[in-house]
Amino acid sequence: MATLDRWLLPDGIEEVLPAEAARIETARRRVLDLFQRWGYELVITPHIEFLESLLTGAGQDLDLKTFKVIDPLSGRQMGLRADITPQVARLDAHTLRREGPSRLCYAGSVLHAKPQALATSRSPIQLGAELYGDSSTSSDLEVISLMLEMLELADVPDVHMDLGHVGIYRGLARAAGLSGHAEQQLFDAMQRKAMDEIEALTAAVEPELARMLRALARLCGGRETLDAARSLLATAPAAVVESLEGLIRIADQVAARYPQLPLYFDLGELRGYHYHTGIVFAVFVPGVGQSIAQGGRYDDIGADFGRARPATGFSTDLKTLVSLGNADLSCRAAGVWAPCGGDASLWRAIRELRQQGERVVQALDGQDGASAQGVGCDRQLMLRNDSWVVVPLSR
Amino acid sequence: MATLDRWLLPDGIEEVLPAEAARIETARRRVLDLFQRWGYELVITPHIEFLESLLTGAGQDLDLKTFKVIDPLSGRQMGLRADITPQVARLDAHTLRREGPSRLCYAGSVLHAKPQALATSRSPIQLGAELYGDSSTSSDLEVISLMLEMLELADVPDVHMDLGHVGIYRGLARAAGLSGHAEQQLFDAMQRKAMDEIEALTAAVEPELARMLRALARLCGGRETLDAARSLLATAPAAVVESLEGLIRIADQVAARYPQLPLYFDLGELRGYHYHTGIVFAVFVPGVGQSIAQGGRYDDIGADFGRARPATGFSTDLKTLVSLGNADLSCRAAGVWAPCGGDASLWRAIRELRQQGERVVQALDGQDGASAQGVGCDRQLMLRNDSWVVVPLSR
Repeated sequence: MATLDRWLLPDGIEEVLPAEAARIETARRRVLDLFQRWGYELVITPHIEFLESLLTGAGQDLDLKTFKVIDPLSGRQMGLRADITPQVARLDAHTLRREGPSRLCYAGSVLHAKPQALATSRSPIQLGAELYGDSSTSSDLEVISLMLEMLELADVPDVHMDLGHVGIYRGLARAAGLSGHAEQQLFDAMQRKAMDEIEALTAAVEPELARMLRALARLCGGRETLDAARSLLATAPAAVVESLEGLIRIADQVAARYPQLPLYFDLGELRGYHYHTGIVFAVFVPGVGQSIAQGGRYDDIGADFGRARPATGFSTDLKTLVSLGNADLSCRAAGVWAPCGGDASLWRAIRELRQQGERVVQALDGQDGASAQGVGCDRQLMLRNDSWVVVPLSR
Repeated sequence: MATLDRWLLPDGIEEVLPAEAARIETARRRVLDLFQRWGYELVITPHIEFLESLLTGAGQDLDLKTFKVIDPLSGRQMGLRADITPQVARLDAHTLRREGPSRLCYAGSVLHAKPQALATSRSPIQLGAELYGDSSTSSDLEVISLMLEMLELADVPDVHMDLGHVGIYRGLARAAGLSGHAEQQLFDAMQRKAMDEIEALTAAVEPELARMLRALARLCGGRETLDAARSLLATAPAAVVESLEGLIRIADQVAARYPQLPLYFDLGELRGYHYHTGIVFAVFVPGVGQSIAQGGRYDDIGADFGRARPATGFSTDLKTLVSLGNADLSCRAAGVWAPCGGDASLWRAIRELRQQGERVVQALDGQDGASAQGVGCDRQLMLRNDSWVVVPLSR
């Protein structure tokens, strides 16, 4: 390999230089502090796990995204985490084993073997919050609100939110006797809004349910969509109506809390790794094809680990948040330039300044004051009358 | 796979629960803030890279520790980072390309295919600082001092430091005409202090150099070791004497700055991934077999990427630092318990408190004040005379 190639990074894998890294670190702290103020406790999940643990309950999408390696110690297959949410669900269900609700949050790198979309990063820093143990719409409303506060903190402009509910399509498909492959086929056709295919796939379904399933693919738009859905689904199975009413309740509460936020509803398009079971939501900004924050309810993952727990939450990519947000994340502190040398009194003076919280950069052999501004210093330490004092930087 | 096994983690791979994760996060921030006060700028390196980039200049030890995967996009072999230091060296040499000295720091997970030692974690959180572009002992002294300040901040008790200099052994071996396999064999024998082997391996070496090489393996102990080395190596090649004098200079300055710190010298034992070129150091505490922080000078890594830059730095494992340190890292904030509900005035009151920096946990359906203490709240939000006020938690 030529020397020139040795420091090329793989597609979608980035390194972050000082100015941007400082912004990311500032945003990371602010968002984690926000989560903490809402009662969410930080957990740290492993970067690598046995593949079965990583993929349990999470579906095929995640499998395809996951890098696999063999563990030399156990000989078993391991995966690099491509999503932190299922890990936190396992931790809640099995390691914490709390009885009441628990609020957890996390921040850490994930790796994607294949990018989510063309030109998307394969190494996002996933940041998210999850609420376990409560199945009411209160917790859905809480996590959606927290997500919106996070976007406000990052000052991401022009956001709009899509809302849907997996239970509506699932309930109809179940009532129509569709399962396994047939449900999957119809689901895929719905995502693509391929009306001809949807027509064909529901040809053998009971007419009233077929009518609802076909109409579902077209049900998208503003708040009026929910009223249209109410009349369309008036005679639907109870579970379907209940899902719709849950969605309406949450949508109206979000609208009351965030009246400026444009809300869109799409009852046929259902994001996520197929692990969602209830409400699903995603935030978009103009000019970015992918959602910038997303989440929903996924009550079944815990069950795969032997303990079912209601669960709802969201996640985002910290790097995206920082690049799209207008928040002032600069934290370049000024500083004091100290002369070179190992003199004991100089060392004491430098140490004291740093203990007071001051940033002090000491010159190395051959460096003089000319280098001070390059490292952001605005003052310097000088010896005057046998004592070290901080004075303005001489030009 | 049985349900019971699904959440087992691989050997040496850990998850971190809330109380410990909060302590780690607090320590992480404090240490990065300390680095910042010393002028070190944070960078974020990738978790995965092409294998050639990761291992260039780093030697075989790192290769054996590195998990390998094939990149589905390029078909090339990639490695999961097992050490961040070589990545930062590449970033300094090629991405930043600064002319003068640069001070960089980092904090992030690394993964080891095989544990460093029995029962050691395979997923430490590596934390470190590196100083590039200056070859003087001033920068060695600076990074050693910063490492010691970090240990002081974490309040790790009973630390002692080992110091050595790779240039002494290297210079003697070179003068003796040993290279490649022969130098490696002798090096390995020195690490094990296998005197018979050392005797045999230096049998053909010029008698004066053989005498020095053999004596080197026994040269360990306190400050007196350095004086013994001075007389032993009086007639050694100039480069060897220069290395020894550099070591003595640094040792005496460290002793002056940290008079309480026990210093040990071992001129035959040379830690690191064989990438060190100058001074090497490691900090130990009683009862822990491995060093808890370590570093040294490695001037040659940049050259492998086409641009040589002097370099010196250290690293530690954040989790070890937190578990061994006595620093008070608790940050469990008190908080305000808010009743359940989506009432607009309640929402406004909660939001206002959080904006003031207060931690507010809202009850979910069916939860009452009895749950408040479990989530660390010491006060509650109550409606009195039509306005929401914070009052002590009623028992």
